[in-house]
Parts: sequence; structure tokens; C-alpha cells
Amino acid sequence: MKIKRSERLIDITHYLLEHPHTLVSLTFFSKRYESAKSSISEDLTIVKKTFSERGIGIIETVPGAAGGARYIPKMKKEDIEGIIQELCDELNHSERLLPGGYVYLSDMLGQPDWLRKIGRVIASFYMDKEIDAVMTVATKGVPIAQAVATYLNVPFVIVRRDSKVTEGSTVSINYVSGSSSQRVEKMELSRRSLKRGSRVLIVDDFLKGGGTVNGMKSLIEEFDAELVGATVIAENIYQGVRSIDNYTALLKVDSVDVESRTIQVVPGNFIAYL
Amino acid sequence: MKIKRSERLIDITHYLLEHPHTLVSLTFFSKRYESAKSSISEDLTIVKKTFSERGIGIIETVPGAAGGARYIPKMKKEDIEGIIQELCDELNHSERLLPGGYVYLSDMLGQPDWLRKIGRVIASFYMDKEIDAVMTVATKGVPIAQAVATYLNVPFVIVRRDSKVTEGSTVSINYVSGSSSQRVEKMELSRRSLKRGSRVLIVDDFLKGGGTVNGMKSLIEEFDAELVGATVIAENIYQGVRSIDNYTALLKVDSVDVESRTIQVVPGNFIAYL
Repeated sequence: MKIKRSERLIDITHYLLEHPHTLVSLTFFSKRYESAKSSISEDLTIVKKTFSERGIGIIETVPGAAGGARYIPKMKKEDIEGIIQELCDELNHSERLLPGGYVYLSDMLGQPDWLRKIGRVIASFYMDKEIDAVMTVATKGVPIAQAVATYLNVPFVIVRRDSKVTEGSTVSINYVSGSSSQRVEKMELSRRSLKRGSRVLIVDDFLKGGGTVNGMKSLIEEFDAELVGATVIAENIYQGVRSIDNYTALLKVDSVDVESRTIQVVPGNFIAYL
Repeated sequence: MKIKRSERLIDITHYLLEHPHTLVSLTFFSKRYESAKSSISEDLTIVKKTFSERGIGIIETVPGAAGGARYIPKMKKEDIEGIIQELCDELNHSERLLPGGYVYLSDMLGQPDWLRKIGRVIASFYMDKEIDAVMTVATKGVPIAQAVATYLNVPFVIVRRDSKVTEGSTVSINYVSGSSSQRVEKMELSRRSLKRGSRVLIVDDFLKGGGTVNGMKSLIEEFDAELVGATVIAENIYQGVRSIDNYTALLKVDSVDVESRTIQVVPGNFIAYL
């Protein structure tokens, strides 16, 4: 039985959304629906137009016999700004203040809806940077790395501060913790988890002194890989000179006053690069 | 300008996929596309049919003025069995053997494509169990919890073995580690992260003695919440009596021989319940 255009459009949409950054051939769709390549081409034109108009993303079409389509998650600038504002509104609550000026964020990083938004925003930003892997440090960064990696469709790797026997052999480095105490700490990564020459994106929840990000940078060098960029959810207040400068932060915690229980979160430097 | 049916079908598909287990009203779609509710109803019928035929999931339609549609990720039995077989094939490699009979799994748990499959399979299984939260223990379980929670569209919570200042106040319990050493260990969960009365699904990577799952069970009781089920990726070889019995495992590591470097992974008890 021949598959109708309406059904093809629904299935193509689902298929492309589940395979971001992947070239899917006309031949594949043509066989899947027992339809002529010319019909599939027309389908893809409709999908492309709708994805673009609705801010779902870009459909790149590759012409010719070996051609096909690739879905690239890309958000509209105003949608990204909208989400960053939503994040500010969500964090600007005094109940989120923790002792020491920390901000409670764990609930957000456990909500699929927030993670989808954060993942799409950051993946959008790096869409044409040919990222091979997303890196983060356990535990808080993991959901962010997974969300971003899902939209970039690349693996994510988790750096740990403690070793586990189930990791196999690891490479470890020492780094200076960015906090005022200037402690030397250790972080390590499973040897199998990152290929030489990989182009790596670092993500994390908070940035204070930058020590952790710097540690990951050294680790990337140990693996003969390349750091492409670093993006955090929020840059925290930090008295002193940060040990890194080339990062972007979706948000900036502008002021925290534990005594009067006030907090002010504003959009970070990320939006300046949109 | 009026939106064509073809464009509506694409956008409805995207919207429903991004909002699983959520009732989206006819009114919402009707306004979004400036189209009559009767047209939207027809659209949803086409989406429903295609989702069902392609094994994408169920579209539940709620009739009436306050009606709408809800997308529930549900896979076909044969697709689930196919994925479990793929998982077996992927793990049945001697290079995955680690000292002590452990199996290297970290790469898989860092690949969005595997996580999507695992997430859909487990979320499918619990689709009508009214889960309120997914629980796991740091660090290995986190990607699994996030993948499952994404398809169930509920929050996930991370139990930790070490405390962090950024968690706020926590509830902790002591539990007997299932390993042969029978050590007493501690695990804790941020007080804010789980609501009283929540129906909780536990997920994790490996099950050996069951001590960790049992610890989480005690923690769930501390929060006056309810354990609905526990599912792990693989149940490991265990000499002795397990401290839990009501769990499902996608896979079973049937034999591991470190000397001859052989490993045998077979489908677990999960498939018996499909």
C-alpha cells in the first residue's frame, strides 16, 4: 500500500528529530515509504519550510543521487533570549539562596523541560563548530552535557574527582581549585572515552574561579584533543581574577546577599555572541 | 495567512514529541494555527494513525470542548526486543571486560543514541504506572535517569554518596552495601528534591547484590514516597542471595571469565514482563 504524503511528513519529522546532525539519504526515505525520490524531495521542502518558520531548526538538503537531508537544531535569536529570561525569572527567588552565597539549581537540572531548553540553546550556539564530544565534570554538569550532546548528537564524557573501578584505566591531572583556598585537586577521565584530535565543548553548571574548567582544559591537552569552547549555566560572583576568560555564561548571578536574603540573576555574556 | 494541513502536521508532530505525557488542548492548536477545531481533530487522527503504525507511540485523544491530545511514548514489543538484542551484541565483546569481572559501559552511557533507545524502552514499560519521579544514584545512573525521565516527562532526582554544599539540606540514610564486604555506607538526597507521596521509579546501570537499590528504597520511605519499580540496564553475576527481588533488568551478564577473557550477555528478566 502506498504511503500518503501526510503520513510521510509525520514520520520524516519524527525521524529527523531523533537523528540531529545526521545526513539521511533520499534513498533511505524512498525505500521506507516505497515512494519516488521526487516525492520525498517535495516532502523535505515542506518540512524544511515549516522547521524554519516555527524555529525548530534548519534542514540542510544535499542534492544529487547520494543526497539527502540533515536536521540541525537551531533556535531563533528571540527564542533563545526568551529562554534566558525565563531562566532568570526562575532563579530570582530568595528561597534559592544557600549558605555561602550558593544558588540552589538541582531541581532545575532534574527537569526534562528545562534541560531540553538549555540543551537546544547551547547546541544551537555551537551548531557549526564541528564538535566531536561534550565534556563535563561529575555530578552537576552531567544532565547539561547530556542535554547538549543529545541535540548535537555527539557523545559526552564525564570527568570525575574520584576513581571508580568500572571506568577502566584513566588519565588524571592535578589542578588548582579556583576557590580562595587554592587547593590542589585531582580529576580524571577514562582513557577510552575521548579520541585523540577530538574537538571538545566543555559545559558545566556554575563558574566561580574557573579552576574546574581549567582542569578540564589540561585534561583535553593530555588527550591531544582540542578545546572549542566552554559554556556554563551561570557565572557566579567571584572576587578576584578568574583563571580563564574565554567562556560564555547563559546567566550571571549579579548579587547575592545572604543576610537580607536577596539574589539578582541577569542574562550572562552568552547573549552578546548571538 | 492560513496554515496548510501539511505544515500543521509537521508542527503538531514536533510539539507533541517535545511534550510527552502532557495533554495539549485543541484550543491551543486551534489558536496556534488559526484553524477550526474540526480541522485540528482531523490532523490529530492522522498523527495518531501514523504514530501507531510506525511504533512512535500512542496519541490519546480526549473528546469534548476541554479535549485535546496526549502523546505517550510506547514502543512495539518487537522493537523493544530488537533494542535489547542490540544491547547484548554491543556488550558481548571481550574488550569490555574489566578487572574483577566488571563490564565497561561508560561509553554507551555517554552516547545520545543509546540513551534515547534505553530511555524509550524503560519509559514505555512504565507508561501507565503514573510515575512522579525517577531516582538514581550518582554518577553512572544519571544519564539513564535523565533519558527515562525525558520520555516520561517527570523530574529525576540524584542520590549522592557524598554531600555537597550546593544541595541545601539533605536527608541521609545508612545502608548495607550488597558487596561481599557488607560495609555500612551512607547515601543522601536533597530535602527539596522529592515531594511527599511521590510515586518513584528507580533506575541504575548495574545490579549486583542489590544494596544500592535497597538503600534508595529506604530513602524513598524516609520521604514518605512510594516505590513503584526498579529497572537496571544489566544484572551482574552475583554469588549469594540478593537483598531485593522485585526488579527488572534489560540484560543479564551470564558469565564472565577474566582469565580466558570471555563474557556472555543475554536478555534479562525485563522481556518476560512485556
